[in-house]
Amino acid sequence: MTDMPLPAHDAGSHVPAGLLSDGVRQAEGSPGSRVERDLLGEVTLPPGALWGVHTWRAVENFPISGTTVGAFGELVQGLVRVKQAAAGANLALGHLDALRAGAIDAACRRILENPAYHRQFVVDAMQGGAGTSTNMNANEVIANVALGVLGERPGTYSVLHPNDHVNMAQSTNDVYPTALRLGLLLAVDPLVAALEGLHAALDEKARAFGTVLKVGRTQLRDAVPMTVGQEFAAFCTAVAAEIRNIREQATAFEQVNLGGTAIGTGLNTDPRYVPIVMAQLRALTGRPMTSAPDLIEATSDVGAFVGFSGVLKRLALKLSKMSSDLRLLSSGPRTGLGEIVLPAVQAGSSIMPGKVNPVIPEAVNQVAYLVAGHDLTITMCADGGQLQLNPFEPMIGYCLFTSIRILRAAVETLTTRCINGISVDRARCQYLSGVNIGVITALVPVLGYDICSAIAKRALSENRKVTDLIVEEGLLDARQLDALLAPDALTRPNVGRAPA
Amino acid sequence: MTDMPLPAHDAGSHVPAGLLSDGVRQAEGSPGSRVERDLLGEVTLPPGALWGVHTWRAVENFPISGTTVGAFGELVQGLVRVKQAAAGANLALGHLDALRAGAIDAACRRILENPAYHRQFVVDAMQGGAGTSTNMNANEVIANVALGVLGERPGTYSVLHPNDHVNMAQSTNDVYPTALRLGLLLAVDPLVAALEGLHAALDEKARAFGTVLKVGRTQLRDAVPMTVGQEFAAFCTAVAAEIRNIREQATAFEQVNLGGTAIGTGLNTDPRYVPIVMAQLRALTGRPMTSAPDLIEATSDVGAFVGFSGVLKRLALKLSKMSSDLRLLSSGPRTGLGEIVLPAVQAGSSIMPGKVNPVIPEAVNQVAYLVAGHDLTITMCADGGQLQLNPFEPMIGYCLFTSIRILRAAVETLTTRCINGISVDRARCQYLSGVNIGVITALVPVLGYDICSAIAKRALSENRKVTDLIVEEGLLDARQLDALLAPDALTRPNVGRAPA
Amino acid sequence: MTDMPLPAHDAGSHVPAGLLSDGVRQAEGSPGSRVERDLLGEVTLPPGALWGVHTWRAVENFPISGTTVGAFGELVQGLVRVKQAAAGANLALGHLDALRAGAIDAACRRILENPAYHRQFVVDAMQGGAGTSTNMNANEVIANVALGVLGERPGTYSVLHPNDHVNMAQSTNDVYPTALRLGLLLAVDPLVAALEGLHAALDEKARAFGTVLKVGRTQLRDAVPMTVGQEFAAFCTAVAAEIRNIREQATAFEQVNLGGTAIGTGLNTDPRYVPIVMAQLRALTGRPMTSAPDLIEATSDVGAFVGFSGVLKRLALKLSKMSSDLRLLSSGPRTGLGEIVLPAVQAGSSIMPGKVNPVIPEAVNQVAYLVAGHDLTITMCADGGQLQLNPFEPMIGYCLFTSIRILRAAVETLTTRCINGISVDRARCQYLSGVNIGVITALVPVLGYDICSAIAKRALSENRKVTDLIVEEGLLDARQLDALLAPDALTRPNVGRAPA
Amino acid sequence: MTDMPLPAHDAGSHVPAGLLSDGVRQAEGSPGSRVERDLLGEVTLPPGALWGVHTWRAVENFPISGTTVGAFGELVQGLVRVKQAAAGANLALGHLDALRAGAIDAACRRILENPAYHRQFVVDAMQGGAGTSTNMNANEVIANVALGVLGERPGTYSVLHPNDHVNMAQSTNDVYPTALRLGLLLAVDPLVAALEGLHAALDEKARAFGTVLKVGRTQLRDAVPMTVGQEFAAFCTAVAAEIRNIREQATAFEQVNLGGTAIGTGLNTDPRYVPIVMAQLRALTGRPMTSAPDLIEATSDVGAFVGFSGVLKRLALKLSKMSSDLRLLSSGPRTGLGEIVLPAVQAGSSIMPGKVNPVIPEAVNQVAYLVAGHDLTITMCADGGQLQLNPFEPMIGYCLFTSIRILRAAVETLTTRCINGISVDRARCQYLSGVNIGVITALVPVLGYDICSAIAKRALSENRKVTDLIVEEGLLDARQLDALLAPDALTRPNVGRAPA
Repeated sequence: MTDMPLPAHDAGSHVPAGLLSDGVRQAEGSPGSRVERDLLGEVTLPPGALWGVHTWRAVENFPISGTTVGAFGELVQGLVRVKQAAAGANLALGHLDALRAGAIDAACRRILENPAYHRQFVVDAMQGGAGTSTNMNANEVIANVALGVLGERPGTYSVLHPNDHVNMAQSTNDVYPTALRLGLLLAVDPLVAALEGLHAALDEKARAFGTVLKVGRTQLRDAVPMTVGQEFAAFCTAVAAEIRNIREQATAFEQVNLGGTAIGTGLNTDPRYVPIVMAQLRALTGRPMTSAPDLIEATSDVGAFVGFSGVLKRLALKLSKMSSDLRLLSSGPRTGLGEIVLPAVQAGSSIMPGKVNPVIPEAVNQVAYLVAGHDLTITMCADGGQLQLNPFEPMIGYCLFTSIRILRAAVETLTTRCINGISVDRARCQYLSGVNIGVITALVPVLGYDICSAIAKRALSENRKVTDLIVEEGLLDARQLDALLAPDALTRPNVGRAPA
Repeated sequence: MTDMPLPAHDAGSHVPAGLLSDGVRQAEGSPGSRVERDLLGEVTLPPGALWGVHTWRAVENFPISGTTVGAFGELVQGLVRVKQAAAGANLALGHLDALRAGAIDAACRRILENPAYHRQFVVDAMQGGAGTSTNMNANEVIANVALGVLGERPGTYSVLHPNDHVNMAQSTNDVYPTALRLGLLLAVDPLVAALEGLHAALDEKARAFGTVLKVGRTQLRDAVPMTVGQEFAAFCTAVAAEIRNIREQATAFEQVNLGGTAIGTGLNTDPRYVPIVMAQLRALTGRPMTSAPDLIEATSDVGAFVGFSGVLKRLALKLSKMSSDLRLLSSGPRTGLGEIVLPAVQAGSSIMPGKVNPVIPEAVNQVAYLVAGHDLTITMCADGGQLQLNPFEPMIGYCLFTSIRILRAAVETLTTRCINGISVDRARCQYLSGVNIGVITALVPVLGYDICSAIAKRALSENRKVTDLIVEEGLLDARQLDALLAPDALTRPNVGRAPA
Repeated sequence: MTDMPLPAHDAGSHVPAGLLSDGVRQAEGSPGSRVERDLLGEVTLPPGALWGVHTWRAVENFPISGTTVGAFGELVQGLVRVKQAAAGANLALGHLDALRAGAIDAACRRILENPAYHRQFVVDAMQGGAGTSTNMNANEVIANVALGVLGERPGTYSVLHPNDHVNMAQSTNDVYPTALRLGLLLAVDPLVAALEGLHAALDEKARAFGTVLKVGRTQLRDAVPMTVGQEFAAFCTAVAAEIRNIREQATAFEQVNLGGTAIGTGLNTDPRYVPIVMAQLRALTGRPMTSAPDLIEATSDVGAFVGFSGVLKRLALKLSKMSSDLRLLSSGPRTGLGEIVLPAVQAGSSIMPGKVNPVIPEAVNQVAYLVAGHDLTITMCADGGQLQLNPFEPMIGYCLFTSIRILRAAVETLTTRCINGISVDRARCQYLSGVNIGVITALVPVLGYDICSAIAKRALSENRKVTDLIVEEGLLDARQLDALLAPDALTRPNVGRAPA
Repeated sequence: MTDMPLPAHDAGSHVPAGLLSDGVRQAEGSPGSRVERDLLGEVTLPPGALWGVHTWRAVENFPISGTTVGAFGELVQGLVRVKQAAAGANLALGHLDALRAGAIDAACRRILENPAYHRQFVVDAMQGGAGTSTNMNANEVIANVALGVLGERPGTYSVLHPNDHVNMAQSTNDVYPTALRLGLLLAVDPLVAALEGLHAALDEKARAFGTVLKVGRTQLRDAVPMTVGQEFAAFCTAVAAEIRNIREQATAFEQVNLGGTAIGTGLNTDPRYVPIVMAQLRALTGRPMTSAPDLIEATSDVGAFVGFSGVLKRLALKLSKMSSDLRLLSSGPRTGLGEIVLPAVQAGSSIMPGKVNPVIPEAVNQVAYLVAGHDLTITMCADGGQLQLNPFEPMIGYCLFTSIRILRAAVETLTTRCINGISVDRARCQYLSGVNIGVITALVPVLGYDICSAIAKRALSENRKVTDLIVEEGLLDARQLDALLAPDALTRPNVGRAPA
């Protein structure tokens, strides 16, 4: 988190002593603090707090992870967009006056423009209550910023109220799932950009290594030839497929349950509310947001989160497999496969001079495993939904935002600190290609499976090259072998025919 | 498994004593048995075995689960279709003569028509070797059935060979993934049909219970009103969404790597092979099968399996949530929610007279949890892919086929033995709706949040109805309340306005 | 399942036509069948069925997996032991007469002695109802076998009743968890025996390869020397630790909730019942079974299952890691690590002559991943416990029995078909040890880290041996190097000092 | 993290301009910064940095999670203790002089005493390299603090070197696993204390509610009576069992591989080192630390982490089940079970006046699910171990420390903000007990199962109480029923006998 200064109007330090309106008063002996109350009693809020009593209760109730909602800036933006859209709709429908609607709108714009406000979202990301505390945190912060816009002190809720005005025609149960989806859409964009960078880096390597013949391996056993370029092109293909999957699955977040209020029936909303608020949302976000066809189902449904988590896990597994391959292919330097060389990005062991480790792919593997763990957490959260709501969406949000964030970081460091600097050990690839017994597969159409099997077995037991044995046995001459075993012939569809 | 008799030509019992051609001979003193050999030596195969020495090795190597490949009929069909398509392509390309191609084709048709042949697929479903043993089991059975078609004894491989002819232009590494995908496509159809049955049953209940007012609940706390019909309609919506997901994700299985052979380079295939074999596959299966654009990537890729497993898990979670809801809603009969009554399908406790338990939804929950477990198994298998192949596809296949099978069974028993027989306890729903404090939410637009909060608090502490208190306080009269709390007003978007 | 014939008295075929006593009558036109009824109506049971109407209902309700309870012989034995112990206790307390108690006891002994009876446990292993159907299956089979002992026809429940007599003083809720634990104790023994076999095989290899120097590797990079024997000894140590873990955790199953009946309060049991039935159980099983100190907690608790699943997963991970290591170490034969050679147990690829794959370790990996998946399933089942019971114990049992079974099978095949036949490629180990740069670590105490780093870097870039460079640079002579790099000095604690 | 000021000697601001000794020089134009170099080149370190170039590389390589190693204070303490113990051993063995050993020891004590130093552990917790970066971060910080002790400027490594002196006779591969175990032992203590607090709170409630009769429920269906006290006592028992499990499993962390160095062979350690360093470790930590019997196995082994994660998950599941029960039992207030009342800790829905939600138990459920997710992550990390090391221990550490921390926080908030304030609704419990049909189970020994079943069925269909029907039918009189259904008789082992 950057430490951007809060705009001046946020500071409560110039609030005069004595009782504030609305029963909000400055705490004695604590300049800038103020007192708010709810059904459970009074609390003294610290100076500079734009959040209120409901947020404070939640902060005390959930000292769980130390990670606040504000740490997920995209979620904050999602919340603010929902509030902004609702204010616009309520104004259009005549339920909210222009002054208050304008102040809410201005407050939302201020928060969106200045990430310093994220620090006002102080509720722990791991919370009970189905997101109510996050929603109230947003309602209170927006109300107090709007009060600042109106020249009022924080806490003057008789002028503009967190619930009555900021939360008008809303319930946590439609606001929170909608804001989560909006936030996730925002978070996905840079992940996709990072993946595109990875794709470009892999593509460059695929081209650069296009003609280097190497041994293909299945089940860690020497198989038939391919090129290093083909191997990297396959990585490319995999990444491209995952970009498509991510993009496609993310569109599920464009369908929201805003307007369903408490349980999806839309109780206490104007029948004209949904189309208007959705139009507002589309206009504000520039995204094709739509209303779920069954708001009751949509209110308790977490299928889109489960589905997206599955797609993130799938991406993670692809990255993990690629990273494991890079570690295998670069193993050595002397006693492993050693076909490629990863760039050295930090000294290795203190006890072993000269050792360099594949630390970047190792980080990617671990990130992938945490993403898989989060997928399980989301699975269990999803299973815990009951009747008209799933109360575990805050943890679902925590896991998805964290997974996206670490995947993006892992992809970026993989691209810039590993892939971009990979070189190929052409001599070693050539040597290994030369000794590989598996090359004999290409001679099966000419010599037959049985003769090839016998040659392969003899080559292994006598520690000879299969090509030497074939020439020695007079089965083919060197010219014929050269033609049959030309790299181009070996690495694409081709039923070998020996030249006469 | 039904015990269908094998067709007569399969029986090896009439094979005369003495050496068979091809070094296959009848084992002494064991009528009907025969001897085959591989590099590891000779083995005696039991009478009636249409599989050969490679299958036998695998049977001995993998005595793991007791579940054979033949238990997954759809996988057998997938394998047979691949072999049939390859024979057709090889014939068309002139690599396989008409006699052998015809015999292979006839053998494939016989196996597809007679499920008794599934019992010849005796390799354990949990096997090492990336599916090679399953592929060889198919090659050997098809070869021996084809030999029967040609009037030859089993094992006469000089006439028609499992590898040279049945497996021509193929590798396990393209055959097995293709067959898995074909088999899964076959397995998905009845699952979707079962889900459609569930959808119809739920839809009927949604209509039947459409006007019954009940208490909506969030976080297990009394919330605002809805109808039982709306609750069942939400189940409907969820099932419909999952049907779409299953169908959509299954299309990923239509893209296969057939023709890639060992590592996807297509070594030892005719350059014209892929389009021809794919056309064969489309014609034989009637499905729009396509060739993966990067056969090297496709050969080691298990993304489609991971993706489909994720979708199955998502479906499982929806079924589990619905089942948990049914158990909650029917809890009681006296001291639970008791809004709906599940049909009694078996006596409950032996020690507690008259107890009836929600056994069908409980079975569905458990099936869902096994599906989630299988998703993890598939995740770990996917992570284990190395370089040009993932050797763990047999376990992936085991998990996917099993998950699909038990999901289908669970959905069918849920539909027929639970949903169809559900009734609603209208009196209880009406009683609970009457005492629900949450109904006051609908009065907020008229009375304001603060007055409503006070009334709600008093109703709870004095154990009164909120409506009684409101009339008593002179806030609204009975006629006004009737209008504001009409079921239709409570269960859809509506900003309450009290009649004058 | 073997097809052992059922004892003659089980066959219902000699039951005369007409009404049987107790309302059980032979179905018309179907010799040997009989009719039973429950609250839901009449059902016709097939000839030979020793189970009754309650089992039949369950068979119809749960056509889920096709795997019956009878497939888990240890569970059947556990159930029978509980029934036998309860009959003994009820006799001792005077609640059950000697004739019936004796018949039940005789029936239990018959079933324990003849595995053919397992086929009478026909309820699907995946069932709702918290095990009630399994318990009733046992009650009915034991009642009917006992009736046979008494010379009565199956179904003559007025003489001896499944509930009143076989299930006396019991509830599914104490019987089933107790039987599960007994069954698991039985299943663990052969798993431990298999692990001991594996340990012995590894120990033999550790001794045989004790002096073969090789390259130790960390993060797949060449590190410092060790011996192949040390590597296998580490496998040994790991297996020994897991044997201890399994044994230790299994003792948790010795504590049971028998006597708690429906919810653990012991309602309807004689206050003297628990100590007597526990003494019976100890005598019958020869195991130190104890009563849980809080039967209410124990009735809904599945902690012992969760804990044991965790230990199975831990074992699985150790086996998986060892298998992955074996695959890495034997990779090649030419272009991998190739330090050890796994025995060839089946021909490899049909398309690649001479290829042999590490199929046995691959099977072990996959088994490990299914065990991990089952652990997740058990986790979700455990989380689903509500109030006084966990209804998902049947799936927990399914997963644990299956995991134990496949682990045992995997360990046995790993031992006999892989470990026992492993040989080491001494020449390759020697060659790789010679070129390993990491050996320079042992010279750090003599030459210092900086000089060693420079030598290591130069060796790599010039493709030289570090020893050659050191001699060339005059840093040490060959005699000194021989002393410092003696295998014995390199593979144990030793601060190198160069001879003068 | 609190913002404690760093001790004055840490500030690099008074370092004079110009080249420092050892090639460390102040960066031009940046007062207080300094320059260090490694094989990859020079880097400029910011003012106040006590870490060096290796840490800097890692910070740049792993911008993954934003959570630093310093956020896990217990891990920092574990690292410091290892360094302190090694310095002591090296001094005792004569490999390290008294001046340097004393400075290292003093530095370690300073860091342990002042948590502000934790901010110097700046490496991301999610890192590749098997913990090398964390180890180097510790080596560098300790070296620079020790240099401060000696009156030297940071970076004067010729006087005291991070590798040569602080890391003497150590490798990351024995230091890091040992430090992780030490840190986990430290982290477990407050978790256990929190659990003991929860146990005491539950125990108080069990006593307070000891005589309140209520309905026991199995499978969410009305079963037989129990007391609310028994229900809370069962929670107590469960927590007590988990405290034992946690404590017992944590002892596995007392066995460490310190002295194994790079791969467990102890290369470059004095043969007398292990016993001496272990004695140091015991003296410094006051814990019975022992050396693993097979250091090679121990170096790559992560079984203790997997095992402990399993125990944490088991604890999490118990807490989750208890939380779900609390939510069920308090459901309502009017249309749920409503037997207990959770304390209101924050206002509920903004849209639904008076709604209060079980937010604390909901938070606990979610924490449990994240712990389960972390267990999966650890499972996958464990499976990724290869040959002589598991490179994924950093993620294992991240998951374990986080799981312990959030479990502790969840337990504390559950105790203080939920359990302590729970009250029971005696009237509702009495009412539900009165209408419960399941009470008839207690009459089975008197009236027989068949009569009881008929009465139960009639009571349900006619909506009557079973006691009324029994009296009406003249089966028992009110006095007899009172005796048979006395709470004390219903809630413990008791074979009912009606008074004459």
